[in-house]
Amino acid sequence: MRTSIATVCLSGTLEDKLRACAAAGFDGVEIFEQDLVVSPSTPEQIRDLAQELGLTLDLYQPFRDFEGVEEDVLADNLRRAEAKFRLMNRLGIDTMLVCSNVATATIGDDAVAAAQLRRMGETAARYGVRLAYEALAWGRYVSDFEHAWRIVELADHPNVGTCLDSFHILSRRWNPEAIEKIPAEKIFFVQLADAPELSMDVLSWSRHYRVFPGEGAFDLVTFMGHLVRSGYNGPVSLEIFNDVFRQAAEERTAVDAMRSLIRLAEQTSIHLQETGAGETAMELSTLPGVGEPLGFNFAEVKAGDPETIRTLLYQLGFTCQGTHRSKAVELWTQNGARVIINSQNARGLEPGISAIGLDVPDALAAASRALQLKATAVPRRSQANEEVLQAVAAPDGTEIFLCEAESGGPGWIREFGRGAPVPAAGPITAVDHVNLSQPWQHFDEAVLFYESTLGLTPRPSVEVPSPMGLVRSQVMRSSDGAVRMALNIAPMVFDGSGYPQHVAFACSDLVALARTAVARGLQFLPVPGNYYEDLDARFGLDPEFLTVLKDLNLLYDRDADGEFLHFYTSTVGNVFFEVVERRPSYEGYGAPNAPVRLAAQYLANG
Amino acid sequence: MRTSIATVCLSGTLEDKLRACAAAGFDGVEIFEQDLVVSPSTPEQIRDLAQELGLTLDLYQPFRDFEGVEEDVLADNLRRAEAKFRLMNRLGIDTMLVCSNVATATIGDDAVAAAQLRRMGETAARYGVRLAYEALAWGRYVSDFEHAWRIVELADHPNVGTCLDSFHILSRRWNPEAIEKIPAEKIFFVQLADAPELSMDVLSWSRHYRVFPGEGAFDLVTFMGHLVRSGYNGPVSLEIFNDVFRQAAEERTAVDAMRSLIRLAEQTSIHLQETGAGETAMELSTLPGVGEPLGFNFAEVKAGDPETIRTLLYQLGFTCQGTHRSKAVELWTQNGARVIINSQNARGLEPGISAIGLDVPDALAAASRALQLKATAVPRRSQANEEVLQAVAAPDGTEIFLCEAESGGPGWIREFGRGAPVPAAGPITAVDHVNLSQPWQHFDEAVLFYESTLGLTPRPSVEVPSPMGLVRSQVMRSSDGAVRMALNIAPMVFDGSGYPQHVAFACSDLVALARTAVARGLQFLPVPGNYYEDLDARFGLDPEFLTVLKDLNLLYDRDADGEFLHFYTSTVGNVFFEVVERRPSYEGYGAPNAPVRLAAQYLANG
Repeated sequence: MRTSIATVCLSGTLEDKLRACAAAGFDGVEIFEQDLVVSPSTPEQIRDLAQELGLTLDLYQPFRDFEGVEEDVLADNLRRAEAKFRLMNRLGIDTMLVCSNVATATIGDDAVAAAQLRRMGETAARYGVRLAYEALAWGRYVSDFEHAWRIVELADHPNVGTCLDSFHILSRRWNPEAIEKIPAEKIFFVQLADAPELSMDVLSWSRHYRVFPGEGAFDLVTFMGHLVRSGYNGPVSLEIFNDVFRQAAEERTAVDAMRSLIRLAEQTSIHLQETGAGETAMELSTLPGVGEPLGFNFAEVKAGDPETIRTLLYQLGFTCQGTHRSKAVELWTQNGARVIINSQNARGLEPGISAIGLDVPDALAAASRALQLKATAVPRRSQANEEVLQAVAAPDGTEIFLCEAESGGPGWIREFGRGAPVPAAGPITAVDHVNLSQPWQHFDEAVLFYESTLGLTPRPSVEVPSPMGLVRSQVMRSSDGAVRMALNIAPMVFDGSGYPQHVAFACSDLVALARTAVARGLQFLPVPGNYYEDLDARFGLDPEFLTVLKDLNLLYDRDADGEFLHFYTSTVGNVFFEVVERRPSYEGYGAPNAPVRLAAQYLANG
Repeated sequence: MRTSIATVCLSGTLEDKLRACAAAGFDGVEIFEQDLVVSPSTPEQIRDLAQELGLTLDLYQPFRDFEGVEEDVLADNLRRAEAKFRLMNRLGIDTMLVCSNVATATIGDDAVAAAQLRRMGETAARYGVRLAYEALAWGRYVSDFEHAWRIVELADHPNVGTCLDSFHILSRRWNPEAIEKIPAEKIFFVQLADAPELSMDVLSWSRHYRVFPGEGAFDLVTFMGHLVRSGYNGPVSLEIFNDVFRQAAEERTAVDAMRSLIRLAEQTSIHLQETGAGETAMELSTLPGVGEPLGFNFAEVKAGDPETIRTLLYQLGFTCQGTHRSKAVELWTQNGARVIINSQNARGLEPGISAIGLDVPDALAAASRALQLKATAVPRRSQANEEVLQAVAAPDGTEIFLCEAESGGPGWIREFGRGAPVPAAGPITAVDHVNLSQPWQHFDEAVLFYESTLGLTPRPSVEVPSPMGLVRSQVMRSSDGAVRMALNIAPMVFDGSGYPQHVAFACSDLVALARTAVARGLQFLPVPGNYYEDLDARFGLDPEFLTVLKDLNLLYDRDADGEFLHFYTSTVGNVFFEVVERRPSYEGYGAPNAPVRLAAQYLANG
């Protein structure tokens, strides 16, 4: 699959954009007209830079408001088009995107549109230019890709073909099956965009909210299946108008974009096998397939001064397994819950979550897959006699370690203390979930990262009010719930840093654990009395049980699947801990209680 | 008019919110349930604080999903309601908002809903509580305020009335005229919200995009007219769910909110007079009416080192009129364009726009009006023998001077130089417009500020792409165009500061001025060659004219009303200048050229 991307997807100058696309591994780019118009570089300089970077220039776009006009307007449009054909010759681009007329069309007659496109095609032919006519979802007379194709058929000129854009097709719910009826050689170009399910006018939706494939709600795999079956073998190009991507660092956005196409190619390939498609013209690269993660291997907190974290873990019933034999790193465990406190090169650093270890069926395959999906490898820090661990950086900088699942616990534990784990029983059984705040510019990237590299599935997102604004929370989950990551966008005031993150531990007896913790002096996050009155009004709880909850600062929720008890520790630096008990199969995270936590944390830091 | 506001409109703790509401001058507040639930203060403490602050607690809200349910659910709902009535007694609140059921209703029968509300009313009566039943726009069976009123009529209980919410009525385009048919004593509460015209699902629109009256597109004046004519005389309360207000400083948001109600009361009063309403129960305060501003009196640039600004003004043909007789302030003029360079207490300060002077028909009345609209007065710095100028601070901190329009120019000019203006002729005639960037948290506030205090009218806003993201631009304009202010929201990376602002001068012969400026060594903002090629493709310009534009770095636009020529200087600190020529009645600001400017400025700051 030839990969391409429109320069409008990215921030920066045209040169910045080209460099970012090349670095991310794209084969080519579409030049968005305005990016060239505002550039001080000549067309020849842009052509040369692309060549130097190994990028093909696949499309010049967009040419607007051409067809369906009166003769005098047409003459001016042809003059305007010819100026652009000359420019395209200088750029070395042979395909132009022609959008269906939205503004100046006055004649809603296919024969007229076709004849006018044919005249444009005749002029284009003199410059060696091909025209890819596309139905915009809000075109004046032409908004359906099949309609655009009928006009192209009528135009009947070798230099006039069609462009298919998944947004314009799927946003209007046109059936993409008809793509297979278009002769592949008349599909001159294909643009892909995904979008979240939003009920708003299609123009605003298109101009502000498009996202890369896999980050939205469109079924692009089925779309791609039809495209491949049509015999199309040209560029598959991303054209994403997104207010956030426009503000984000272009190098990162380009990598996010490339990852989305690699993942889509894999999914398309699987889809085609499943639907029994035979030989196809388009080659679709595949990736090492790996199973879902099986559980949390460990969570790592980095801290200049480990003492406050040690105290919290002790109060929660964890046992120290000793320090690492070669690093300033110590291990605390309780049954299957493992926390590493890392003070290596951390002088003066406030405590914060620095790494997560996940058990995977095949660590080498998982790491290879992540790297092929453009994840950044984390330099290994192990010595010759130590366990070799695979790790990649998540979009927020957290290190994700991919650990071989081993019966009897991870081998690396032997590198701590006396090499044999000290028994550490207690009601905490494992890590239940990890909650990481994400920079607002990279939230969609994070969702795609965890989905594509680790096979976690996004759950419906929720918005939680806090005294500083709404917090958006998106859970990514393995199918059996053994791995759950909650990704948050914090209010703007944090600008992606300093917002506390947390590790939540699963517990078989929360009340008993809380009592032990009280005895050991744990600072619970205080829960207001009004909360318990409201809880009682909502659930009509047993008064004794309510008193227990209130005395211990425990939070409570209930749904059709069961009950949920949980509490939070106070925050140390940028990290706090939560302990949860699911009775027995409550699936949520106590979302109704999240505003209580956020308000209490606001007050505590106030 | 009794003013009230829901605590959910504001950020911070419940105490922060109450203090902000009191400081802004509200008579009362609605307690949003969740704000109380997350508060560590007891209901009694909240009641006492409100009393101490002189605020009435007007409404407890919302109570959800009560009516239209099976008998067993009703029993639980009544238990839940009674717990809240007890709580309201402790708070000293006698009215509860009951929203039409969205989640648990299974019976779409008005008689059932009415009977159930009646039973709720009977319980409420025992606690001295009144129920204000409101149709949510997305209610399961009840979404129309007239329908809610019919159910209240059927319920026929003195403690059951209705609540009217302008959002739920106007978002669904229900006709508010029917308000007049509801007996005033059965309207227990009124909530007001405005909203921009957005084509999205009504729930998302309501939860994220509500704004204060006058900041959106709803006709709240007509709505208020019906309400006043109904005889209603209770609180008029703001309930605004807005993602941005939730993140903004609560003191400012509360002032913005209060300003919106003061302005709405004035407009309603005028509307009632115009429509011939007689005596009404509700008293509507009025404000000193003032005419629109007649023009720009001056623009002030504050700079630690005035030299770079002096040079720019000299290059643009301005003449220095000398320094102020008592301050480190100098005046530069060219015909009716006056620029003050202020270096008073400005050591080390980068140049930036600090003040704008506007000619108004009655400066004292205008200042009085602005202060009654909660504008902050700027401390006067004049001495006994100097002109006394009225000034208020705009939401972005710019000082707005309200100057008495005088034939023969402003009197304060005599305080500069030798007291008599030096002739300063040239093609620049006046200030055409001023472009100020606004903090993203206070954009709606700024629009309302300029509309309500100065009578400027918002024009349709535009979004302009830049290499760092979209810039939203909103022009506020006097009806004859003599005063035009463009308010911009800069990309997030600026976070409201450091984004360049500018003063644009009107000019009768831009080409001549540009030539003079070239001769005087002006650094023009460079315009790329690609721009001129595109301009030619779009407009088919005379080649000689195109060469003139290109040689002088002039930008060009054309529409049905005429032509627009303009150029920009390079940026000094946070300010630059633009010169524009309108041929003859072009009304815009060269929006198609804005991306060229933004890209060139991005490169220049590289």
